[in-house]
Amino acid sequence: MAAAAPPPPPTPTPNPPTDLPQSDSATPFSHTLFSRIRLATPADVPHIHKLINQMAVFEKLTHICSATESDLSSTLFNSPPFQSFTVFLLEISHSPFFNPPPPSGSGFAPIDRIVSLELPLVDPEAESFKRGSNGAENDVVVAGFVLFFPNYSTFLAKPGFYVEDLFVRECYRRKGFGRMLLSAVAAQAVKLGYGRVEWVVLDWNVNAIKFYEEMGAKVLPEWRICRLTGDQLEAYRDAM
Amino acid sequence: MAAAAPPPPPTPTPNPPTDLPQSDSATPFSHTLFSRIRLATPADVPHIHKLINQMAVFEKLTHICSATESDLSSTLFNSPPFQSFTVFLLEISHSPFFNPPPPSGSGFAPIDRIVSLELPLVDPEAESFKRGSNGAENDVVVAGFVLFFPNYSTFLAKPGFYVEDLFVRECYRRKGFGRMLLSAVAAQAVKLGYGRVEWVVLDWNVNAIKFYEEMGAKVLPEWRICRLTGDQLEAYRDAM
Repeated sequence: MAAAAPPPPPTPTPNPPTDLPQSDSATPFSHTLFSRIRLATPADVPHIHKLINQMAVFEKLTHICSATESDLSSTLFNSPPFQSFTVFLLEISHSPFFNPPPPSGSGFAPIDRIVSLELPLVDPEAESFKRGSNGAENDVVVAGFVLFFPNYSTFLAKPGFYVEDLFVRECYRRKGFGRMLLSAVAAQAVKLGYGRVEWVVLDWNVNAIKFYEEMGAKVLPEWRICRLTGDQLEAYRDAM
Repeated sequence: MAAAAPPPPPTPTPNPPTDLPQSDSATPFSHTLFSRIRLATPADVPHIHKLINQMAVFEKLTHICSATESDLSSTLFNSPPFQSFTVFLLEISHSPFFNPPPPSGSGFAPIDRIVSLELPLVDPEAESFKRGSNGAENDVVVAGFVLFFPNYSTFLAKPGFYVEDLFVRECYRRKGFGRMLLSAVAAQAVKLGYGRVEWVVLDWNVNAIKFYEEMGAKVLPEWRICRLTGDQLEAYRDAM
């Protein structure tokens, strides 16, 4: 479908103080996770592909999901970040990240956040979503992604960002990571002087709508999406 | 607003045969217009700006239309056509167009259509929308535009086009020009192997919905647009 935002937490976990005494196992939020948002690269395609498939399962839309790794490789990463289709990946680790400096010109330094949880988090798919051995960062797993690209408002005569997909793997939901990914897109839009961030939501997904409204978004009630696709689009092959 | 499609003709004028005897003034469709769709260039910004303002008036949204010529110049035409924000202009003339070959690499040759009308068409704004003297083409007026840009479907792992605005000046409406502009975008999408063309419509605009459905589009009833803008977006400046 056009966009696939899983129902995010209606009341996302606020970031607790991160300076709680780590040695006191009776303290709430004593289980620390390290999270990072970074630009995806072509090397991440296998993980992005798996995340897209999980999203299709979540939305019961596997029958219209035909994306292959090869399709993703050939259609993403053809432009500098933010100028066209752009993917932020959410990574999780049990130890602090070593952040290499961002590639020159990308203008996006990875965003690190420490998240403390009441209960330990078990990721049953950790093995499958490991980022690949990388010396000090060999317990890093990919936990979610957001795919977005520039859109344009003629009335503002300004670009914005359109968020096509936002997805967090099941065991990482309701911990503020969805908000973190969307906030990263919004912050980047402000940084670039853009006028809007837009996405779509299913009208029956009241939890998601409440969450988005709490984030400051307005839901536009009157607009409907029109889509020309498949054979109906193909019919225009020789239209002009 | 997000998109501004004026109510197109519910039953657009079919292209009549263009080989009617022109000398017989009693024949229906004896008034011939020459139309052309071409890529806009930076030199067209003044006309695009005027069209956007007319669109804002048409939608009673002048209070949120802040676009200036300078804004348009600095945000459009920064990428090759079709890779980012792209504008097709609709031009009308009383004499055949002289089409220079398209600039190398754009991959888009102007599209010419002859339109025959029952009644002569008077354009009260012709002077204001003249394309500027250009030798043989000095009666050419700008009559409308469509602004679109690539979007992306993760399920298809393919780009598509999103049509942000489609506008035809009042005296040229209900003559098939809106359909012509939208068809040109659809044809270009097919040519590039893209998966979808999408746009939005107001749910109460039943004429437009009927027209789009006749063009093969489906209206997606359940999706709603979420928009983060203004102060609510600005609040994310230092969010990450």
